Amino acid sequence: MRVERIWPVGLEKVQVIPLKAPPKSGPFSFVRELSSLLESNGEALSDGDVLVVSSKYLAMSEGRYVRLKDVVPLGDADSLASEHGMNRAFVEAVLRESDFVLKGLQGFLLTIKDGFFAPNAGVDKSNIPKGCVILHPSDSMAMAARIRREVLLSMGAKVAVVITDSRLQPLRKGTVGVSVGFSGIEAVVDDRGRADLFGNLLKVTRRAIADNISSAVQLVMGESDEGVPVAIVRGLAHFVADIDGYDSSVEPEECIFVRGLSSYSSATA
Amino acid sequence: MRVERIWPVGLEKVQVIPLKAPPKSGPFSFVRELSSLLESNGEALSDGDVLVVSSKYLAMSEGRYVRLKDVVPLGDADSLASEHGMNRAFVEAVLRESDFVLKGLQGFLLTIKDGFFAPNAGVDKSNIPKGCVILHPSDSMAMAARIRREVLLSMGAKVAVVITDSRLQPLRKGTVGVSVGFSGIEAVVDDRGRADLFGNLLKVTRRAIADNISSAVQLVMGESDEGVPVAIVRGLAHFVADIDGYDSSVEPEECIFVRGLSSYSSATA
Repeated sequence: MRVERIWPVGLEKVQVIPLKAPPKSGPFSFVRELSSLLESNGEALSDGDVLVVSSKYLAMSEGRYVRLKDVVPLGDADSLASEHGMNRAFVEAVLRESDFVLKGLQGFLLTIKDGFFAPNAGVDKSNIPKGCVILHPSDSMAMAARIRREVLLSMGAKVAVVITDSRLQPLRKGTVGVSVGFSGIEAVVDDRGRADLFGNLLKVTRRAIADNISSAVQLVMGESDEGVPVAIVRGLAHFVADIDGYDSSVEPEECIFVRGLSSYSSATA
Repeated sequence: MRVERIWPVGLEKVQVIPLKAPPKSGPFSFVRELSSLLESNGEALSDGDVLVVSSKYLAMSEGRYVRLKDVVPLGDADSLASEHGMNRAFVEAVLRESDFVLKGLQGFLLTIKDGFFAPNAGVDKSNIPKGCVILHPSDSMAMAARIRREVLLSMGAKVAVVITDSRLQPLRKGTVGVSVGFSGIEAVVDDRGRADLFGNLLKVTRRAIADNISSAVQLVMGESDEGVPVAIVRGLAHFVADIDGYDSSVEPEECIFVRGLSSYSSATA
């Protein structure tokens, strides 16, 4: 995804505008709700805006609740649950949502879901009805594309859509924002055509724009459903384009953390 | 670091204001340069602003260049250099800057520096004079505290200071911003006193504010010294306080990535 850029980068101010929303629980139409949130917050979407929405809010809009007593744990869940001090039905829900499961910490399994690391595959039990868990949206990439189209049709605004979650970082306290779905945005900017004296520095050549936007929005988003599940990021129109379907994951064998940490475990075993 | 908060969270707009700067190379006084950047960009610092500065710009201000031909590689550097296709003197510089070195990818060693993972210990060879590398600032935490004090004394503004670098993420393309030093800011917000139906969800309870700010600023910062090495983030005064010295690292044995990836390597070996 190389996009020829003709604007000066880094000269515009960027605004992060939180939209306060009332608590929701059952399924609802997100775009209809968005109209009322924009009105109650005195805001409107403009061409080139990035519309950022929390994955949990969208999962709620889809009614992606699971009652733990309806989940029958299978063989694998037993040993993982006892090893990690977790509820067996909860572990079963995590296993069903994961592409690949790794061991973790007390209460947490590290999983790979949709190509990325996610603790507990995004299965979450905070701030929802007791006895339930909430899953990630069914398909965040498709959902981002659908929201972008519906916003264009119903409000006439050419926006980008980023769906965000919060994610732990290696060796650091606290979560940062991460994008689990996006549409209409150059999600990873490739600066590799730019002059470099030596020509081999991968680490400074690509910027994870959708993830940086997600982190910027985590500064104003609450973590509960009483908070701020939606925000507008304005001033990044140069990254907004009519594009979809970019794969922002890297293969495990090309990941410096996967490669490095396998040598770490053998060095400290 | 629990700070009693009395403001409504998530209701303020946040602004990210880039400061364009001319290219620099030799040592210089950062705070003196800042005054001229503020003037040339038509901006001023206010109480509650977060002043964000790139670590490379500050390393330049300290003259932290090393000529590779002056670095004598020792034993370890040889085998690591040939295994990773790297220059031996460069590897030696990485080893000297690291607390702990792990294997990596072609051209990259994963290291632990100041408690965090950093590819090549932050030793960088892009956009600086040929034949040289540039190191991280000598002590980013102390430097952030010093800049905060000098800004207060010379400009009378009570700001927070965050020093940023760019960092790869596990299994994802592109870099995000990360804070390598900070002063005057609640770097990690602890929401663990908040109501949760189950009470055990670590992942949603702490937010890495300084890292999220660093990522927000990566949206406007260039990656070269011709770009935007400084930015002001406005609207986060509720996180700004007269605090210093918070340790935002977690121990490897408490890190879900370290724990999970050791099981990944044995599962796929």
